[in-house]
Amino acid sequence: MRILITGGAGFIGSHLCDRMLSDGHSVIAMDNLITGSTENITHITSGQRFRFVVHNVANYINSPESVDAVMHFASPASPSQTAPTSYLQLPIQTLKAGALGTLNALGVAKKHKAVFMLASTSEVYGDPLEHPQSETYWGNVDPVGPRSVYDEAKRFAEALTMAYQRTHGVDTRIVRIFNTYGPRMALDDGRVVPNFIGQALRRTALTVYGDGAQTRSFCYVDDLTDGIMRLLHSGESSPVNLGNPHELTILEFAQTINHLTGNTAGIVFEDGRTHGDPQQRQPDISQAKERLNWKPQVPLEQGLQRTIEFFKEKYASSA
Amino acid sequence: MRILITGGAGFIGSHLCDRMLSDGHSVIAMDNLITGSTENITHITSGQRFRFVVHNVANYINSPESVDAVMHFASPASPSQTAPTSYLQLPIQTLKAGALGTLNALGVAKKHKAVFMLASTSEVYGDPLEHPQSETYWGNVDPVGPRSVYDEAKRFAEALTMAYQRTHGVDTRIVRIFNTYGPRMALDDGRVVPNFIGQALRRTALTVYGDGAQTRSFCYVDDLTDGIMRLLHSGESSPVNLGNPHELTILEFAQTINHLTGNTAGIVFEDGRTHGDPQQRQPDISQAKERLNWKPQVPLEQGLQRTIEFFKEKYASSA
Repeated sequence: MRILITGGAGFIGSHLCDRMLSDGHSVIAMDNLITGSTENITHITSGQRFRFVVHNVANYINSPESVDAVMHFASPASPSQTAPTSYLQLPIQTLKAGALGTLNALGVAKKHKAVFMLASTSEVYGDPLEHPQSETYWGNVDPVGPRSVYDEAKRFAEALTMAYQRTHGVDTRIVRIFNTYGPRMALDDGRVVPNFIGQALRRTALTVYGDGAQTRSFCYVDDLTDGIMRLLHSGESSPVNLGNPHELTILEFAQTINHLTGNTAGIVFEDGRTHGDPQQRQPDISQAKERLNWKPQVPLEQGLQRTIEFFKEKYASSA
Repeated sequence: MRILITGGAGFIGSHLCDRMLSDGHSVIAMDNLITGSTENITHITSGQRFRFVVHNVANYINSPESVDAVMHFASPASPSQTAPTSYLQLPIQTLKAGALGTLNALGVAKKHKAVFMLASTSEVYGDPLEHPQSETYWGNVDPVGPRSVYDEAKRFAEALTMAYQRTHGVDTRIVRIFNTYGPRMALDDGRVVPNFIGQALRRTALTVYGDGAQTRSFCYVDDLTDGIMRLLHSGESSPVNLGNPHELTILEFAQTINHLTGNTAGIVFEDGRTHGDPQQRQPDISQAKERLNWKPQVPLEQGLQRTIEFFKEKYASSA
């Protein structure tokens, strides 16, 4: 297969490139490098099977070559209040990546009769009133809140994807990705994993907002890409959740990272930063289990070890 | 003021043109005539104060002339399953009017530092779990259901409007319009008012789907345009509901129309056509009352009389 991956220089996109190439496919990675980085793909040799194109998916995608699959993974995705690459700091770009980006990527799939996959998100469930969240839950999103630039963009992208399937017969997939972690998360991403690991490696106390009782479920990126590949090769056109249902509190998570890094500086608690931030989000992965025969395999400590190794090298090379 | 009205040849848009002109403003009406009709504006003389432009808002809007307000009212809006102009029959156009149309219209407002108003809808509340619906309710919309082409497009449009306000400082308004009726509804619109009046004027029985116990609240279009003008001149950037909170059942509504038209053919009940169709939707208009000093003034029977007159003339001229 020849596959176009938008956001191919991003965290998840670049892992997808690796997986596709190791499965014997050809990849065209597209990225405007606003939140992605060529560092994520420098280990891949350009050639017959891999090509990188700098392009903003919000602009028309010229695609003279035929492709067999289009995977639309381009979007800012960090919910951080402050990180310059977060969707709160890039509101219009985020809305455009979701609407115009999806429209353009669907156009390529339609033109070449390729399979289309939309990278959607657990954020379509917003601040959920049901736990865990199954794909049939319609969500609880404030359409005019600050986070709506991401949540509504992805909900719109899902609606557009279904419309192309129903109207134009495009063979589509929608993956709702829950919290994912692993190597190539950006250092300044603002999300909890790089924040905690960064603090631990600097031997400072880990900052926990609120009382740390809010829970998260973290899926290792290799598990995610495995689920994505299974979904791509399946015939599932309804949305499918991919994530790790193993819930732990932010406090437990901080303690695990201190333990794994040997950081003895402990934990500090700070107020706030929880406005609109869901207290709990956990995937119901029954659909993925039944239809894709998928479930996460990598234990948290093992995934965190690999991620910590990545950040150690990153810090060493940037020091 | 000089005002650009997208969807200016539509049902509500054309009434807005009338109201703006009678208030002494200048109007540029824009419409691609997919669901609008020049019949709605033939009574307006083109000249210094009125101009009509055929244009699809999903395409870039070239606006060399300065405008003081941009009112984005272009979109298919009928939820009918079968009417050729309904959003279910025009899914991609509807999604584009909401996303690309809003983006282009906001671009004009930004360029000319004009006030921007988005015509949003009670459909952002979806199949609501709260009654009546206030502006703080986040809604219950299926992002991948057939109706999502309209609901999610409007939710996206709201998110985009807020992002332009927060990011670019555009002075924005969002009106969430509930069921509206009046002259210039399309005959083949598929909505309950033209359906019932058409059947009554043809002296056939009125078709009620289900048991007729589902309720609706209908606002006369002159009341709506009055509320819109108040909102435009206010400083309200948060969404405001406009609609008539007076609820009646579809059965009561059918009976009233038979009474007003002297139709003695009665009512027939048919199964179904209620999938995804909310059983109940009623605006909480506290915000409009408090902030705009607005409430509907036209009694239902009076509004229906005027609407029936319109349809009588329409049928006479098409006969």
